[in-house]
Amino acid sequence: MVHKPYLLFLGDAEHFSQAKTAFGLRDWTAEACLGQFSLPGCKVSLDLPEFKPAAAAAKGAASLVIGIAPVGGRVSTTWIPALFEAVAAGLDIVSGMHTPLAEVPGLAQAAGARGVRLVDVRRPPAGLPTGSGRKRSGKRLLTVGTDCALGKKYTALALTNALHDHGVDADFRATGQTGILIAGSGIPLDAVVSDFCAGAAECISPDAAPEHWDIVEGQGSLFHPAYAGVTLGLVHGSQPDALVLCHDPARTRLFAFPDFPTPPLDVAIERYLEAARLTNLAVRMVGISFNTSALDPAARASLLADTEQRLGLPCFDPLKTPLDGVVQRILAL
Amino acid sequence: MVHKPYLLFLGDAEHFSQAKTAFGLRDWTAEACLGQFSLPGCKVSLDLPEFKPAAAAAKGAASLVIGIAPVGGRVSTTWIPALFEAVAAGLDIVSGMHTPLAEVPGLAQAAGARGVRLVDVRRPPAGLPTGSGRKRSGKRLLTVGTDCALGKKYTALALTNALHDHGVDADFRATGQTGILIAGSGIPLDAVVSDFCAGAAECISPDAAPEHWDIVEGQGSLFHPAYAGVTLGLVHGSQPDALVLCHDPARTRLFAFPDFPTPPLDVAIERYLEAARLTNLAVRMVGISFNTSALDPAARASLLADTEQRLGLPCFDPLKTPLDGVVQRILAL
Repeated sequence: MVHKPYLLFLGDAEHFSQAKTAFGLRDWTAEACLGQFSLPGCKVSLDLPEFKPAAAAAKGAASLVIGIAPVGGRVSTTWIPALFEAVAAGLDIVSGMHTPLAEVPGLAQAAGARGVRLVDVRRPPAGLPTGSGRKRSGKRLLTVGTDCALGKKYTALALTNALHDHGVDADFRATGQTGILIAGSGIPLDAVVSDFCAGAAECISPDAAPEHWDIVEGQGSLFHPAYAGVTLGLVHGSQPDALVLCHDPARTRLFAFPDFPTPPLDVAIERYLEAARLTNLAVRMVGISFNTSALDPAARASLLADTEQRLGLPCFDPLKTPLDGVVQRILAL
Repeated sequence: MVHKPYLLFLGDAEHFSQAKTAFGLRDWTAEACLGQFSLPGCKVSLDLPEFKPAAAAAKGAASLVIGIAPVGGRVSTTWIPALFEAVAAGLDIVSGMHTPLAEVPGLAQAAGARGVRLVDVRRPPAGLPTGSGRKRSGKRLLTVGTDCALGKKYTALALTNALHDHGVDADFRATGQTGILIAGSGIPLDAVVSDFCAGAAECISPDAAPEHWDIVEGQGSLFHPAYAGVTLGLVHGSQPDALVLCHDPARTRLFAFPDFPTPPLDVAIERYLEAARLTNLAVRMVGISFNTSALDPAARASLLADTEQRLGLPCFDPLKTPLDGVVQRILAL
């Protein structure tokens, strides 16, 4: 597996949404994150100490984790000198890119010579089945979204913790590279061949005890022109009993797709329920998770109260407000 | 490319729906199909002469085409002696399975020694992009279905021919292995990594002249618990101006998924339009294609007339009735 602690590589990221992996690790495995390493022109910061690889290695870092995920998931040529610098400093390289690290010319040889490892966490297991649609035991919640990169993983992690606080037997189930690095296991769903996408989603949350909850990390959005197919396979394969809709109220257009509006919440709720009913007629929407990082406390409180009133669902920000309302809805199912 | 003529391998198929590739090649490239080769227990026939590989080779066959596509697309161990027999007879092996032929132990060596080729047509090209959602020039029609394996490819091929008969510049665009063998090009969409599925669908029907029609072969079904994600990626990426819904009136349950009913036609129409509007607000359903092979002429005529009356759409069987009604709808767009 992956060796800690981590030096989080930010490359030349221009927007925090490109650095989901780095922020996710900082926020959910803080004890493992020793520092950050950014290139000139980088406009993103984790507010961690900045180290070059050699300095981080001297402080005890074990791995350089590529903390950025550009569209398409390919290793950028601008990063390559930094990867060699990390290998030379004796760090493992950990990547969630679609491009295997061994495809960077010379990197595998350099790693072998230095005795460090190239670890690709976006490799799905071999032999995945196609979906069966078979009903599994145990209970499942899936986080879904009006767009990508707006809080589905954070919401799933926070809900898992909140259920644990209520004494519920629950597991976070990772479906993306960052979630896998946080949880230590999972399947990178967007790297699975599409014929096996629903089948992989079925494997992620296997049969379990009747009162056990799997909290499945959502992917993409049904309203996204590039990734909706991944989302639908996950919705069908996870056969959720409960859905939580995640939304960023500041986003009226899909991130990086300005021709595509974010859907109204009531439309998103209906479309996700409609999709999920194919494999679980009893599915319920149990809450709405807002990313209110851009709002002041009064605006946040007003948004949550107004939406709760209008849609009749518990509304919360997993990083800012209590989750008791949504947890009660989950436990009432 | 693939060398003709073909000996079509049926293996031990138990149902015609497992032999879509063999039937597709027989029906759309009849001149290339020399005969069939089935194993004991096979319950499917193409009504072509039955040959062993050596006899087919003596008649001039160039390739054994694996004509069956079991769920999951893996090479069955029961076929392996037949594949070696074909290699020994000097035939290329052509496969649309997910399993590369070279993974059959010893087959690549045997093929190399005999001077024949192993041809995998279910390999997507490298470097596919993620979807962009960008509007492309030209016009597109996509066939969609209430289930898998009920006529989406046949409908697309028949519509392409009918448009040619009306003097329209149109191309059949293949998205599956059989279509690729018929058309000579295309991308096997279900073999694409799910993150790139919509992007691959965008590549399949590129920018074209304003009056040009791409007739895109549909895949899977939005109502299928295993494959709906592939379908949705194709719907979004092909950004169709026109949809044709394909249905088998004899099928009340999804094939091989008896817990899943086929959707009512009006529900299917609404859900496909709803999905397609994400990338093309002007999309229209222009007709319903029925597979009426199990009906007598009176029952066929009555089904088509009644449905046409009820839903207000041209209804046809692409192998049994004229396509003038749907072609007029297409040309009116």
